[in-house]
This record gives sequence, C-alpha cells and structure tokens, in this order.
Amino acid sequence: MLGSCFMSWIFLMLLLDHFLLISCTAAISTEASAMVIDGKSIAKEIRHEITTEISRMKDEIGVIPGLAVILVGDRKDSATYVRNKKKACESVGVKSYEVCLPEDSTEEEVLKFISGFNDDPEVHGILVQLPLPSHMNEQNILNAVSIEKDVDGFHPLNIGRLAMRGREPLFVPCTPKGCIELLHRCDIDIKGKQAVVIGRSNIVGMPAALLLLREDATVSIVHSRTKNPEEITSQADIIISAVGQPNMVRGSWIKPGAVIIDVGINPVEDATSPRGYRLVGDVCYEEACKIASAVTPVPGGVGPMTIAMLLSNTLSSAKRMHNFQ
Amino acid sequence: MLGSCFMSWIFLMLLLDHFLLISCTAAISTEASAMVIDGKSIAKEIRHEITTEISRMKDEIGVIPGLAVILVGDRKDSATYVRNKKKACESVGVKSYEVCLPEDSTEEEVLKFISGFNDDPEVHGILVQLPLPSHMNEQNILNAVSIEKDVDGFHPLNIGRLAMRGREPLFVPCTPKGCIELLHRCDIDIKGKQAVVIGRSNIVGMPAALLLLREDATVSIVHSRTKNPEEITSQADIIISAVGQPNMVRGSWIKPGAVIIDVGINPVEDATSPRGYRLVGDVCYEEACKIASAVTPVPGGVGPMTIAMLLSNTLSSAKRMHNFQ
Repeated sequence: MLGSCFMSWIFLMLLLDHFLLISCTAAISTEASAMVIDGKSIAKEIRHEITTEISRMKDEIGVIPGLAVILVGDRKDSATYVRNKKKACESVGVKSYEVCLPEDSTEEEVLKFISGFNDDPEVHGILVQLPLPSHMNEQNILNAVSIEKDVDGFHPLNIGRLAMRGREPLFVPCTPKGCIELLHRCDIDIKGKQAVVIGRSNIVGMPAALLLLREDATVSIVHSRTKNPEEITSQADIIISAVGQPNMVRGSWIKPGAVIIDVGINPVEDATSPRGYRLVGDVCYEEACKIASAVTPVPGGVGPMTIAMLLSNTLSSAKRMHNFQ
Repeated sequence: MLGSCFMSWIFLMLLLDHFLLISCTAAISTEASAMVIDGKSIAKEIRHEITTEISRMKDEIGVIPGLAVILVGDRKDSATYVRNKKKACESVGVKSYEVCLPEDSTEEEVLKFISGFNDDPEVHGILVQLPLPSHMNEQNILNAVSIEKDVDGFHPLNIGRLAMRGREPLFVPCTPKGCIELLHRCDIDIKGKQAVVIGRSNIVGMPAALLLLREDATVSIVHSRTKNPEEITSQADIIISAVGQPNMVRGSWIKPGAVIIDVGINPVEDATSPRGYRLVGDVCYEEACKIASAVTPVPGGVGPMTIAMLLSNTLSSAKRMHNFQ
C-alpha cells in the first residue's frame, strides 16, 4: 500500500515536473519573466525620505540645503535637464539657485559665478550643466568647483578617493550611485557577484565599476575596444550598461537570471510616436525580460534615480557642513 | 624539375612542422617554454637612459633631480628599501636627501619635514617609506606631500586623474608603471587584450587595472571575495598578480600563451637556503613557464622595475618643474 502510494507520488512529481518544464520553456521563449526594477517609484520613495530629512534639519537647526545650477548656452536638452532639476529641488524643499549665461560668455564669467557660489554659505552644492560651449575648457571650470560642493562627484579628488580602499569620497557621481541604490533597494546581492560594466566614461562607467568593486563584486569593464563583449557579459550576474548604443545588448549577451541595469537613454525613430521618436536603452528590453531575473526599463529605470541622488548629495553636503546627523 | 623540387619542399615543410609540433608538445608537458621577462636587465637599460637624461639636464640647465626619503622607525625591511633607493639614486645621478626619525616621533615632526621638502626647490620628489608606525595617520601624512612632488603617485588626486579619461596624472605609482613598462619593452600588445589583475590594493592592483584600461585592455579585477578566480584568470591574455600569496596562481589558472606579470615577493621557508627562506611570487613559476608565453621571475622581474620607475618619476618631476624637454 505504502509502496504503491509512493510510486503514485513519484509519478505525480514526474508529471508535475514535466508540466513545469514545459511552462518554463514557454516563459523563456515567448513571455517576459524578469522583475521590472521600477526606478520611478524607488526614486519617489527616496525623494520622500529626503523631504522628511530636510524638514527635520530646518526644524532643528534652521538650515535649508541649497543647490546652484549654472547653465551656459541655449541647448534645448540642457535647458530641460536644468528645469527638471529645479522642479525636483522644489518638490523636496531644496532651495535652488539658477544662473543662465549666454552661449558666448567667457570662461572667466563662468568662473566668477562658481567662485561666488563657492563662498556662499547658503549654497551646499554646485552643478555646472554639461556640455559647455566648445570654446570653454571643461576641466578648468569643473576643477574650480569647491570639492566640498561638488555634488556631481566629478572632481578627480572624489574619483581618486572612490578608487582607493580606506578613503571616502565626499560625493559619489549621481547616475552610478543611483544604479547601486537600485540594486540595494531591490535586495540584490552584489558581494562576490560577477559584475560587468559596459562603457568606461568618467561620469558613469568608471565610477560604476569602482562602486561595484567597493561592494566586493568581481568587476570587468567592457568597452569599444573589447573584442568579445558578448562572451564577457554572458558570464555576468550583474550588468550595468552605459554606452549610448540602442539595443546593443541582446538576449544572447545575458546569462539566465542576471540583473540588468540599463543606463542608456537613446532616441530611435518611431513614426507611430507623436514626437517621431521614442527612447530605448542600451539593452534590448524585450529580450532581456525573457532571460534576466530583473531589469530596469527605459525610461523609468535609472533616469529618475540620477536626480534623486543629486538631491541626496545636496542634503548630505548641507548636513556635513553644519555637522548635522 | 620545378614541380619535383616544390614537392620536396612541401614534404620538408611537413616534416619540419611534424618535428616542431612534437618539440612544442614536449615543451608544454615537461619543459619550460615561456620567455622569461628579465626585469633586472630592462631596469638596467632604463636606469642607463635616466643617467643620460640627467647628465643632459645638468649640462644644459644645471639642474640635478633631487629625491627626499623619509624613514620613521627601525623596521629592518624598510631600512633596506631606503638604502637600496639611495644607492639607485647615486647610480643614476639623482641627489638623495634622507631623513631618519625614531619610532616614537610625532606626526607633527614628520609633517614638519614634509613641509620643508615641499618648499625646497632642490627636491623634486618626496617619498615617505611605508608602513609608518601605528600611532601615525598615514592618510594625513601622505596627503601632506605636495602633489607636484608625489613621485609615489599615491595622492588621491593622482589616482583620480589616472582613473579619468582625458585627464593626466602627474605621477603613476611605480610598481604598476613598472609592470606596464615591462609589457611595452617586450613588445607585448595590450590594446584589445583581455587582462586580469589579481588584487585591488591602492598601491598596485587598482592603479595597474586603471593603467591597463588606459591602454585599451578589457580589464577584470579579481580579489579575495571573488568566488571563481581560476575561471576568470584562465580567460586572460595578460595576468598581473599582486596579492602576496605564494604560488597561488597555478598552471590551471593560466590560458596557454598568456603573459604573466608577477608582482608578489613572498618569503617561504627553505632549509637549503643559507638564510632559511627564499622568495617566490604569487604565481607558481615552474607551472607558468610551461603554459604561458612570457613570465616575470621572482626575484628579478617586477622588483627592479619599481625603483627604476621611482627614478623615472623623479626625473620627470624635475623636468616638469624646470620646463625642460
């Protein structure tokens, strides 16, 4: 009796297994199975936490964090970014200071404003919107921002500290910081994982790699000179892609179950869209959804995190300057 | 006639190929086949070039490069390193300034000497021998060295610039610079190659990885938290190992034909040696010789390059300060 029951049970298990196998295969081949990492709602949660902290700081010591943004020239995209940053500041209670200078301003004029903000105790963060007009030396201008107010985290001293064990940067660049924050908030383990960063830019790829290393991931950096990117990325538990190539990372580049953080925001022509284009990431989203365990959408993934991290850096700066815990 | 001659030639080639194949297989399985990268003779060549340059500078503008070394405490190994550096300075014509302070000196005393050397126009490089006594804050002391005289290249600003595209560090840390110089002088291609750095220390692993990346290698960094180091290193065209674990990297960790730069200098007990120990690298040398295409010995590989690069950094510093090409 027991034996026959056991045999039936085994049979049932085998049958179930068979069905599960079929349904799984079906999911991989035709349906999305990855968790979508909702950057928009995580960023909202972070902005809410920042609002609470700012209000507490204001109540306890009467200080309001201030962010100065310098925009030179009349690039439409830059103007949009600056407008969005200003709105974000307002939404959490950061006071924003904006300077808009004409395209033909001199480097000296920009430096004069930076110097003013460096000295202004009500300004805790200074941001120079990039790119600058081509007649300006970007390096000179960024270096002029006081390291204590470099909320963008692009100063080489900050990057150096980020690269060094036992040193702490004053600020971590916003976009890569946002990538890691997404992993943390989704309870995705980094320690001991194999991570691949695609792209080695100063503002995303390199600092992202340094951050992953600080979190004890084994890190590989893949770039335009890499001969076999697919071979390398397909071994990764975590991929952070920041290259600006629409849909470059295909399903075959991804190890089943990997986590994908897609920093790319690339416009591609789309006649069906009212604007004539739509935004896609570096990663082929539909294919990634079928093979990865978690993936950030574009838009609505890393994008909203960048501004949230800028606000977070500005708050940290104000706290540090006023020694407020 | 021509046809028969051609056939004989083909036959000869096939025969030769057959013998070569046998001898190659034999070499891989039982004999050493890798080129030994002779760091000692390459360092000698570099020191010779430096001597020539220093003599030219002295003749043309009357400037002699000066290197100040600060030694605190009475560690025997540190004293040996300092003595070797002094000897190396003498051999190429760098003027060396040495300060030896007792173990119980205060941080302020060390800082006073650094400040003096910072202001001394005859000193072009300042080196604080590490480790410092435990009651001193290493970070404070190293940060006090003027960035223009930081010939060790350990200042975070130098590391930051090393990490950033479009930025140039004033100095590159000596040991990793020596590793890359060995590759260059042996005509080993780096661009597009898969490189693995084992170890992520501030003084070797991390800057070595940053340098390889600047040379357009695809770089992976493996460390103590890496779960599958062998799997990763065995894909590498170039391995730089800097962990301080005797013979950790075995033959199975190495891809056939890879180039191995072994930074480790580890003492292991050896009753047959008069000193009771001998020095071995991180890489099992005998096994590496059978599978790699080129390998650095320990001692006599990277070691001599470190001091050569220190002299090279001191010369560069003097040239930069006096605008001498």
